[in-house]
Amino acid sequence: MIAEIIAVGSEMLTPSRQDTNSLFLTSRLNELGISVAFKTIVGDNREHLTSVARTAIGRADISIFMGGLGPTEDDLTRESVAAALGVELKRDHEIVTAMYKRFAERRLQMPDNNAQQADVLRGAVVLPNSRGTAPGQWLETEFEGKPRVLVLLPGPPHELQALWEKQCLPRLRALTPPAAIATRVLKTAMLPESAADARTAPIYKKHPGVETTVLAGQGQVEFHLRGTAPTQEEAQAAVDRLAGELEDELGDAVFSSTGESLEEIVGYYLQMRNAKLAVAESCTGGLIAERITSVPGSSRYFLGGAVVYSNDLKTLFADIPPLMLEAHGAVSKEVAIALAENIREICNADIGVGVTGVAGPGGGTEEKPVGLVWVAVTDGQKPEVVQRRFPGDRERVRRWASQQALDLVRRMLM
Amino acid sequence: MIAEIIAVGSEMLTPSRQDTNSLFLTSRLNELGISVAFKTIVGDNREHLTSVARTAIGRADISIFMGGLGPTEDDLTRESVAAALGVELKRDHEIVTAMYKRFAERRLQMPDNNAQQADVLRGAVVLPNSRGTAPGQWLETEFEGKPRVLVLLPGPPHELQALWEKQCLPRLRALTPPAAIATRVLKTAMLPESAADARTAPIYKKHPGVETTVLAGQGQVEFHLRGTAPTQEEAQAAVDRLAGELEDELGDAVFSSTGESLEEIVGYYLQMRNAKLAVAESCTGGLIAERITSVPGSSRYFLGGAVVYSNDLKTLFADIPPLMLEAHGAVSKEVAIALAENIREICNADIGVGVTGVAGPGGGTEEKPVGLVWVAVTDGQKPEVVQRRFPGDRERVRRWASQQALDLVRRMLM
Repeated sequence: MIAEIIAVGSEMLTPSRQDTNSLFLTSRLNELGISVAFKTIVGDNREHLTSVARTAIGRADISIFMGGLGPTEDDLTRESVAAALGVELKRDHEIVTAMYKRFAERRLQMPDNNAQQADVLRGAVVLPNSRGTAPGQWLETEFEGKPRVLVLLPGPPHELQALWEKQCLPRLRALTPPAAIATRVLKTAMLPESAADARTAPIYKKHPGVETTVLAGQGQVEFHLRGTAPTQEEAQAAVDRLAGELEDELGDAVFSSTGESLEEIVGYYLQMRNAKLAVAESCTGGLIAERITSVPGSSRYFLGGAVVYSNDLKTLFADIPPLMLEAHGAVSKEVAIALAENIREICNADIGVGVTGVAGPGGGTEEKPVGLVWVAVTDGQKPEVVQRRFPGDRERVRRWASQQALDLVRRMLM
Repeated sequence: MIAEIIAVGSEMLTPSRQDTNSLFLTSRLNELGISVAFKTIVGDNREHLTSVARTAIGRADISIFMGGLGPTEDDLTRESVAAALGVELKRDHEIVTAMYKRFAERRLQMPDNNAQQADVLRGAVVLPNSRGTAPGQWLETEFEGKPRVLVLLPGPPHELQALWEKQCLPRLRALTPPAAIATRVLKTAMLPESAADARTAPIYKKHPGVETTVLAGQGQVEFHLRGTAPTQEEAQAAVDRLAGELEDELGDAVFSSTGESLEEIVGYYLQMRNAKLAVAESCTGGLIAERITSVPGSSRYFLGGAVVYSNDLKTLFADIPPLMLEAHGAVSKEVAIALAENIREICNADIGVGVTGVAGPGGGTEEKPVGLVWVAVTDGQKPEVVQRRFPGDRERVRRWASQQALDLVRRMLM
């Protein structure tokens, strides 16, 4: 079985925007043993979209359309696919009623154009969208004598992904022969990408039955393993064997082998130790707190902290003596340690984090260049403190710094 | 004239790799007044590639193929395009000789399969590749009675870009009537998507010369305008006219008409007023501070603040009386206002922001459901405070809440 993924939206035909949903769908389709043979990107143009739909339905067993399901005049996917198939659209009044209710609950009046989101391809199943108003559609049909699956999904990634997992995956699994594919993701923190690959390539190359993809971000290198075998047990065993060898090589740089984010892992450790965390952030400006609180239930171990962007606030909220700021500068080992120690004590936390640095692009000097960051973590004993010079722009420096801070907390709790 | 860009290579149909060359080409084509109407990604498969080539040549004035021009068995672009057009390939012996020479200079023997790189579509011009061995090809022809341009380019970006600039751009410029494209992006905050479209569709439909795309995120609806005209002045005027009418309709919901983010706009206003900002965040957990400090130079107007996740920290850093927390609960109008007022005063800021809410997925009650957020902003006079019930998951609720807070600050400074 082959699939075609069609991304609909004129903005993806500009120099500045790209389809990324197809990467998610490709990975999910591959897990079912389905290859993506074509990807097409087309604008919000009825004629173009209809011709693209006709081509896709002609050549692919499964055609997945993403986007163009909203309430606006630009949202043409439903009618274009209907035209390509030669079937009618039927307005589903249950959906219209549900939409009216939804608007009413938020005390808003529903604009009339919203109703077009309830137009359904004849014979299609409606896929409720728990995260937005535009429902998806699933159609199993025949085209020129061949069985075809057509899927219409909303474009926003969080809507598309939830809909795919809940509504499409089970339906597609029922249609595909059982494919024995096992996957595993190892995540490492603060390991240089080139070193990570040099150390692991000799290992994963000895496992040709497992496909290994190495992905690197700011302070994070991930190994995505994908094994195929006649049975699920064999596929899983092959993947687990390689994962074990990689973990042996990389040691405690590996923070997760079952998909968790670094902030989730830090949360697990804090809960396990029944420890509370507080942070004092200068250059990361709230990013560390934001990452920690992105995890549901983080109020169980995260108290909060201070974003001490100005020097006055470093003194006000984290008791940094003005004399220390004068003597060493705000970006210094001394200030990082004092931020961690003081915020811990002031907030009555078990672990304190302090970060100060030059995120750039301005503000760098010869002595304290852009990318220089001090990160300190303490549990009330001896503080751990590291100095780093991170590469990249403002966003990347801040992301690196937050990763370093979370990794130090993890190592302290390990 | 419309173009189709075809990226050839099985690796671009995996979950981890994407075509990026098309962004470069799109920007160059737009500069000549040529729109990209379709992008297709296809693997190294003769049958698929031939069908993709036939479709492209049928519907686009210009078809640009990227990749698949190398010496290996997988490199099938030349023969597939030839098959789609129904023309022959002819081996160019001058190119073969030049390749032999090139290998000889590096004291290497040329593998035989390299010679296929010298196979040229009948009637095509060979485009010498100064940065690699595979030359490009340029063919002006007719297909089903229509004039067509076909371009074959190597896949590596530095080869493709050099070849495009030197060999393709001048040829294409000679073929296209002088045309220009102007673009403009209007961004609005806290406007419901469907209402935004219902109000604006009657306006932008009266401007058929400007293509309008509506994009919506959490609390942000953007209008991307793109106008084409014989001269740059006319294109710009058409886009500006429509932008003006849209601004008149949407009023102060429009926060930017030249591309800035909401956090940048808030930064401009703060600097203009010489005002300093401080924030006290509960449910957003640092996201507002993170967004504000993502802007370079934000230390000029952002002092910092507190992430008051626990109730103790609300009292410690923002002086919220425990009795108030008991009487009204942490998620309440009273606490939001007090957070804004107190953080402003404590930090000696001009503007204070307070946010408290239920981000979910847990913690909701009938009275205070998931998504309920109170946002308050004050400049020391009467505080502005709003209650919202945001849809979506934890991440989206937090994003909405941060957008609402930034928008209130903007409106207070306007």
